[in-house]
Amino acid sequence: MFIHQHKVQFYETDLMGIVHHANYLRFYEEARVAWAHFKGLLDYQQPSSASHFAVYETQVKHLKPTFFGDDLRIEVRGRTEGNRLIFQYRLTGRNQEVCSLAQTVHVPMGPDLKLLRLPVAIKVAMESESWTETWL
Amino acid sequence: MFIHQHKVQFYETDLMGIVHHANYLRFYEEARVAWAHFKGLLDYQQPSSASHFAVYETQVKHLKPTFFGDDLRIEVRGRTEGNRLIFQYRLTGRNQEVCSLAQTVHVPMGPDLKLLRLPVAIKVAMESESWTETWL
Amino acid sequence: MFIHQHKVQFYETDLMGIVHHANYLRFYEEARVAWAHFKGLLDYQQPSSASHFAVYETQVKHLKPTFFGDDLRIEVRGRTEGNRLIFQYRLTGRNQEVCSLAQTVHVPMGPDLKLLRLPVAIKVAMESESWTETWL
Amino acid sequence: MFIHQHKVQFYETDLMGIVHHANYLRFYEEARVAWAHFKGLLDYQQPSSASHFAVYETQVKHLKPTFFGDDLRIEVRGRTEGNRLIFQYRLTGRNQEVCSLAQTVHVPMGPDLKLLRLPVAIKVAMESESWTETWL
Repeated sequence: MFIHQHKVQFYETDLMGIVHHANYLRFYEEARVAWAHFKGLLDYQQPSSASHFAVYETQVKHLKPTFFGDDLRIEVRGRTEGNRLIFQYRLTGRNQEVCSLAQTVHVPMGPDLKLLRLPVAIKVAMESESWTETWL
Repeated sequence: MFIHQHKVQFYETDLMGIVHHANYLRFYEEARVAWAHFKGLLDYQQPSSASHFAVYETQVKHLKPTFFGDDLRIEVRGRTEGNRLIFQYRLTGRNQEVCSLAQTVHVPMGPDLKLLRLPVAIKVAMESESWTETWL
Repeated sequence: MFIHQHKVQFYETDLMGIVHHANYLRFYEEARVAWAHFKGLLDYQQPSSASHFAVYETQVKHLKPTFFGDDLRIEVRGRTEGNRLIFQYRLTGRNQEVCSLAQTVHVPMGPDLKLLRLPVAIKVAMESESWTETWL
Repeated sequence: MFIHQHKVQFYETDLMGIVHHANYLRFYEEARVAWAHFKGLLDYQQPSSASHFAVYETQVKHLKPTFFGDDLRIEVRGRTEGNRLIFQYRLTGRNQEVCSLAQTVHVPMGPDLKLLRLPVAIKVAMESESWTETWL
């Protein structure tokens, strides 16, 4: 299981004193990008490799708030479904409590913002992942 | 139907040349807050009235990208379901095309971040809303 | 004097209960872009016209905090200095109090991120602006 | 010299394909908070210790752009001047090039947003810092 860590920054809080909900999509993007880099599917020098997976759908559940300075731990897993990439995430905060669960769905897209076929390298990398548990 | 408008800013774009997906949750928050203010349910001088509706779940679909300078038009509607507030959103971009659909679910929360009962004023305000169509 | 308005959003606050300081650079960008559009110097359909003025230097003073729901009023003025564009801003919050003053310096840049000469249309548009007062 | 590292995220880029300038104030806040934590001046469990240093002034120079995936290295140093805290920052990007220089000035503030005296612990911690070089 791939795990990404994120330390909550002051600028990620809001006037409720907790992390603002829109930031979780940023944390999940961070985790997804780190996963893709780890799998050899993303070259930072060629950012088009990352940018050209358009976000088609996101779903985020907030079970507990997270706070300034928290060391978040985000588990990531991915699979393909036809032409789509599906990622699930489990975010743990203080006291090892699960604070958020999420799923994002992506489609491959050219620089002209038109849909493409899913590259074979991605399909192969995804096949090695297995989901034996339901998170969301 | 309540409609909120948002002009896409330069700082809301990313290196794909389109609006970054995390910003849509900000647009929907803007629309929800404007709706609550319009309904007399939110007093900006008492921000606790807004902050104390915690976001429990968000779901966003991206059908078309949106771009720098676009004049977005966001339709909002809300209803209650037990102790929860449910909002749906339809976001239209250039050429009157629907670019994104979303739903957010909220729970009332005290300043101590503990769950509260839904205030009656909210329930009453919500009853006047009716959904005759499915967006998401 | 060109004036841009911005309503403070919930997502722009931080755990001090006030607008986070990094957002002021966003407000000033909004105002600068609106100014350039008003002057006919920026076409939203050709975002390169906006993007290709790189930010070289920013300076922001914070005199008073601003809050959720505040209707900010941002005065903008610009001038050229050799190959540079210089903008100054005065931001007023509740009770007509000046809350922030700022200056940003920009240089024209090609899509290859190399410096360009300042276009004549910009120079001409700037000449009509006059600064008879010092803000910062 | 204290050094903070930040990996540039996809969501920090804009349609020029580079990091948006407002994010640098976030990077510098990250570095300042990490410095204060390292010096024993900030307890994440008591976020008021961080939040109650209000930002009075910021100045940022952009010498080179930074890009998605870059491993930024931010040097931080601080000193006091009367009741104020002054920090300077030097940000290095790819190829060990200095990409940005900055200074921020802070004032101690109570939870009621009123000015306070600078705590002695801060003054003492700052005295151990020495600036023998001018960055900005």
